[in-house]
Amino acid sequence: MPTRPDLTHIGLNAGKKARLRRILHDHGLRNGTALFLPYDQGLEHGPRDFFANPAASDPRYIVRLAVEGGFNGIALQIGLAEKFFWDFAGEVPLVLKLNGKTDIPPDDAALSPVHASVEDAVRLGADAVGYTLYVGTPAAEADYAQLHRVRADAQRLGMPLIVWAYPRGSAIAAKGGKDSFYAVEYAARVAGELGADVVKVNFPHPEKRNGVPAAYDAEFSSQQAIDAVVRSANRTLLLVSGGEKAGDEAMLEKARESMEAGATGLIFGRNVWQREHNEAMQFVARLREILAKYPSS
Amino acid sequence: MPTRPDLTHIGLNAGKKARLRRILHDHGLRNGTALFLPYDQGLEHGPRDFFANPAASDPRYIVRLAVEGGFNGIALQIGLAEKFFWDFAGEVPLVLKLNGKTDIPPDDAALSPVHASVEDAVRLGADAVGYTLYVGTPAAEADYAQLHRVRADAQRLGMPLIVWAYPRGSAIAAKGGKDSFYAVEYAARVAGELGADVVKVNFPHPEKRNGVPAAYDAEFSSQQAIDAVVRSANRTLLLVSGGEKAGDEAMLEKARESMEAGATGLIFGRNVWQREHNEAMQFVARLREILAKYPSS
Amino acid sequence: MPTRPDLTHIGLNAGKKARLRRILHDHGLRNGTALFLPYDQGLEHGPRDFFANPAASDPRYIVRLAVEGGFNGIALQIGLAEKFFWDFAGEVPLVLKLNGKTDIPPDDAALSPVHASVEDAVRLGADAVGYTLYVGTPAAEADYAQLHRVRADAQRLGMPLIVWAYPRGSAIAAKGGKDSFYAVEYAARVAGELGADVVKVNFPHPEKRNGVPAAYDAEFSSQQAIDAVVRSANRTLLLVSGGEKAGDEAMLEKARESMEAGATGLIFGRNVWQREHNEAMQFVARLREILAKYPSS
Amino acid sequence: MPTRPDLTHIGLNAGKKARLRRILHDHGLRNGTALFLPYDQGLEHGPRDFFANPAASDPRYIVRLAVEGGFNGIALQIGLAEKFFWDFAGEVPLVLKLNGKTDIPPDDAALSPVHASVEDAVRLGADAVGYTLYVGTPAAEADYAQLHRVRADAQRLGMPLIVWAYPRGSAIAAKGGKDSFYAVEYAARVAGELGADVVKVNFPHPEKRNGVPAAYDAEFSSQQAIDAVVRSANRTLLLVSGGEKAGDEAMLEKARESMEAGATGLIFGRNVWQREHNEAMQFVARLREILAKYPSS
Amino acid sequence: MPTRPDLTHIGLNAGKKARLRRILHDHGLRNGTALFLPYDQGLEHGPRDFFANPAASDPRYIVRLAVEGGFNGIALQIGLAEKFFWDFAGEVPLVLKLNGKTDIPPDDAALSPVHASVEDAVRLGADAVGYTLYVGTPAAEADYAQLHRVRADAQRLGMPLIVWAYPRGSAIAAKGGKDSFYAVEYAARVAGELGADVVKVNFPHPEKRNGVPAAYDAEFSSQQAIDAVVRSANRTLLLVSGGEKAGDEAMLEKARESMEAGATGLIFGRNVWQREHNEAMQFVARLREILAKYPSS
Repeated sequence: MPTRPDLTHIGLNAGKKARLRRILHDHGLRNGTALFLPYDQGLEHGPRDFFANPAASDPRYIVRLAVEGGFNGIALQIGLAEKFFWDFAGEVPLVLKLNGKTDIPPDDAALSPVHASVEDAVRLGADAVGYTLYVGTPAAEADYAQLHRVRADAQRLGMPLIVWAYPRGSAIAAKGGKDSFYAVEYAARVAGELGADVVKVNFPHPEKRNGVPAAYDAEFSSQQAIDAVVRSANRTLLLVSGGEKAGDEAMLEKARESMEAGATGLIFGRNVWQREHNEAMQFVARLREILAKYPSS
Repeated sequence: MPTRPDLTHIGLNAGKKARLRRILHDHGLRNGTALFLPYDQGLEHGPRDFFANPAASDPRYIVRLAVEGGFNGIALQIGLAEKFFWDFAGEVPLVLKLNGKTDIPPDDAALSPVHASVEDAVRLGADAVGYTLYVGTPAAEADYAQLHRVRADAQRLGMPLIVWAYPRGSAIAAKGGKDSFYAVEYAARVAGELGADVVKVNFPHPEKRNGVPAAYDAEFSSQQAIDAVVRSANRTLLLVSGGEKAGDEAMLEKARESMEAGATGLIFGRNVWQREHNEAMQFVARLREILAKYPSS
Repeated sequence: MPTRPDLTHIGLNAGKKARLRRILHDHGLRNGTALFLPYDQGLEHGPRDFFANPAASDPRYIVRLAVEGGFNGIALQIGLAEKFFWDFAGEVPLVLKLNGKTDIPPDDAALSPVHASVEDAVRLGADAVGYTLYVGTPAAEADYAQLHRVRADAQRLGMPLIVWAYPRGSAIAAKGGKDSFYAVEYAARVAGELGADVVKVNFPHPEKRNGVPAAYDAEFSSQQAIDAVVRSANRTLLLVSGGEKAGDEAMLEKARESMEAGATGLIFGRNVWQREHNEAMQFVARLREILAKYPSS
Repeated sequence: MPTRPDLTHIGLNAGKKARLRRILHDHGLRNGTALFLPYDQGLEHGPRDFFANPAASDPRYIVRLAVEGGFNGIALQIGLAEKFFWDFAGEVPLVLKLNGKTDIPPDDAALSPVHASVEDAVRLGADAVGYTLYVGTPAAEADYAQLHRVRADAQRLGMPLIVWAYPRGSAIAAKGGKDSFYAVEYAARVAGELGADVVKVNFPHPEKRNGVPAAYDAEFSSQQAIDAVVRSANRTLLLVSGGEKAGDEAMLEKARESMEAGATGLIFGRNVWQREHNEAMQFVARLREILAKYPSS
Repeated sequence: MPTRPDLTHIGLNAGKKARLRRILHDHGLRNGTALFLPYDQGLEHGPRDFFANPAASDPRYIVRLAVEGGFNGIALQIGLAEKFFWDFAGEVPLVLKLNGKTDIPPDDAALSPVHASVEDAVRLGADAVGYTLYVGTPAAEADYAQLHRVRADAQRLGMPLIVWAYPRGSAIAAKGGKDSFYAVEYAARVAGELGADVVKVNFPHPEKRNGVPAAYDAEFSSQQAIDAVVRSANRTLLLVSGGEKAGDEAMLEKARESMEAGATGLIFGRNVWQREHNEAMQFVARLREILAKYPSS
């Protein structure tokens, strides 16, 4: 089993360490694990994501949920951060998402354009920035150029960089798809190689083997797969994403396997706020139970 | 029914608040609502828009109309602002439109190139800047990059940012078209997520369901649709556009529904200045009657 | 009939006014009209334009012609301006053309790349800069970005901006062509909207109606067309171009109609320097006779 | 036989000379030769390269290997350099790789986007930077622009520039392929012409003659080919790469021929770390035996 | 017959004049003519150009040849200039070539990317910079943008700008090809219009008339053609290039015709260094004999 990286041995400068320590040890369970609430779906998918629970359309409701649920951070785009974070500033860490896109045009050459800066994050009192990297896309040139600038600014300003590492594009589709063990492990590695402090991945599906390179065309358990992904991220803290709302027991099992593998935490959005408030809180409580079993030593 | 956002609780810095307050409370009905006169059609559609009322070809006539009609602002491109605003500066707020394009080439990958800066707006004494964002276009990378810069400059200089949020491009055409409830609501949300202070949308058409995502493929009244759009804009002030000149009663009904939904105001151009002067003034009077019923509390 | 704009009421800053006043009132007929000699065809069409009159291949001959003919300005690209303007500096105003292209590749997505700056114009003692804008081209994004920068520099440095407003590209070809009344009027309007101080257009052909928008698909006299074009340019001074060498009486009639419509002047190149010297001078004399009848009040 | 270039006669500025001297004379065999350990494959090929020897997935294992094996340098991307170099800083020189890409999309217009800067290298205490140049790619415009900036920064900051010169793209594929004598020799020359201090090439295959220019369509021994490549690199130090893991005797023979030809050293990654630790050390020992026979005079 | 331009009447600033005077009057025959040795073929064509005379692969051999042959300058790319010019600095002027490309991919949209700066030239003690402009290429936008920057820097730093004016691209191929009288004359003119101080062209072939514009579809002698080209370059000094190695008498005849036409000099590379040393020197002596007959007055 891989071991979770420790903040004191992963090359962080003072600002990055101070902010990550605040996220991991002054919020949530305060035990070195993390539970994040992402709320960038209004841009990524549009308001239809809120039809299941109309209250979730209101950013104020969501930020309050993050506070009430004891989350370690909430991820917002610049517009909502400007308008809604102030009310709860200091009560929950802000992850300012610096890029994003709609799901309207096709994804063959996916690129998530930058629309905010690390300086914006500093001004707003954020404790981290988020960047979506599409691993495998033909638009890599523009993607790396954007990330280069974000990484350099984050380094200079001591701001932790969380990379949403998403396999995408026609070549990925032909090599097992965006959720394959191959694609997820490669994405985690790329984020780390390019300078992420934290990487967010989807849970790998080792059974998706259609077109994957030979090394991945074998039987792997889901525990083996997530173990390997964490190992490939090495000193990059790893968050596992919930993705679309799905069956609770399956979700919780994946969460458990992820923490067992050495992940630092979980990032669950739709699985939380597409439920009615009380139900959401109960689900969050179950996630926290899992995290509580994996304190940093 | 959503509530109209209040200038004191939407995260504005001092310059933005001062300028929006001037627009909403020192001009027009001075009751927190707004009626804007857009005059960017000479660029967007060309002089043919003035054939119905040749007087409207003269920008001086239009600026005077904005003053006489008690508008809260007039939107001009840089060339006309430089040449015609001075005469009436201080009598009506200027919204400097920073980008624009002709309607000559096809719209599949629509992009509205920037041709003026927030600094130009400051120099000219404008009280807001306008930016056209084409939501759903394949040219999103360039669009977001432009908007990023405009938003950052507007933030730095305390200049309110009004986003013309227009669904466009081949993918939008295939998913219900640019006026569908789906497209308009998504566009309003995107503008807010990316940092608009004010968003201008077309009135949504919930009956356009051909190709829209499942959530929108149901019966919605136009009041339900505009309510949802305002809710999706949340703390972004919303303006409803008149679009092409159409039947008066239908227009006024949409205006009423919009204000009922919590819109901050209306932005009517061709419906005003394509009429002869007296007729235009009578139509404006009717719009003002509607606005008068929805003062900010 | 439209009225020619007056330098004191069109929003010019001090530098622009001083330089335009010098061009219009200290050179040529000194009556507020203008006759310009363009000499950018060596780049735009190549040396074949000089085969009719080989002397015209020599830039020194041309600059001298501008002085002898009492022109209000000569338009040159940076290379010729650097090498040939010094000899006659002060004797005739220089319009430094900032962009240009060859006619070798096809024109479907025409763009005229910038190769010189407003600072170059200041250094060379020019009294205006020229910029070719291709209205309707699919390359509008790059075109507007270039023009944005030129306009901003011209504003900052008090340098008048003359826009060569040329309809171009496949969409224009499909909507009546580059000389239609529709295309020319739209082009004049766009130049003014984007911040031109002076706009150069070709004479409109209202009889070219194949594919034009409905409003233009009617009988218009050439006088009606040029009247409308000048009106659409409003406070942007308008110059009518001679284009290819053509029959004298037809040319002079168009010149007369243009001045009657309120144009500020004419810009004739090939029609002048493709003639032998004496003949050219006689033709210039006839143009001056026309201009003399339209002094600024 | 060409002669290996000598640090004192190849136009280095003080910083470049000091750092190259440190690499070549204060590390490894300290005899002017070099053995580098590249570890950029996690980005270039993904974690599948570590399946043969899972320990190699851990960057800490690799950096330690470089120290234990007496390498003259280790090449890392920014993310791993930030997180893993500190532990061994000073014990082995760092080559910060400034660009890279995944092998997911097709290679027809290969470009390796820059994601780190020469300033990053200085901050991390690196002794050289690495840049991958794809010679023959249709994306040369972007490639040269990136390299221009890297070269200028490296010159300014006294940082040696190692160019990974890789023939790539559809035209290369049609002219003998990326390993042909033609392609490798041309690539070595291009790197030197564009300002590399050190160039890394693959061993040339003179037998690959399908589609090569006439001059290369003849019998050449591998020694003749590598001699020519070193000669074409002239005063650019040349490193020969191991490439994919292959038969030991063949590899060692190529290493010997390279050093005989005047190469400065070898750069072997997968051939080293895809072996189990002891076996790797034995292979390294054999490489060092070869290098020991070619001290700089 | 055109007259060769004189350094005192072509608008040069002090730095440009000083450096051109050094090239034309302190080196070579010191009579105002010039013989340049270009050595950019290692990048442009690759090492195969050196197979005819392997000694020519060594840049040191070439620089020495330039000194021994009494050349007025040697043109090198940045990499070779950094590594080889120092040895002979002051003995022969350096022309630093700022852009270049390989001949591997197809030439339809040829562009020669910039990889060095005018500042590099100043730092290296060069007396001129060289820039390859592809006249007629669809990539003109990028080409002009590059040249704009180079020209402006050269102006600012007093560095003469030599433009390699090469017709290229599919439209050129369809209009008579890159060596036609039409193409060469147009290219010479374009270079001058865009600000070249010196232009390098290939000798025009008036017999290549397939697809050329009507004006060129007539009988012209080669003397008439080169006369016209020099006239089109007007105050831009003109160099005629040797191109591929060809029959001596034909070459020398073209050289004579060029000088007779008013060219300032010749630029011969492969025709010189693809010969064995003594033979090269004899050929150079014959070129110098020609130049000696055309001193500047």
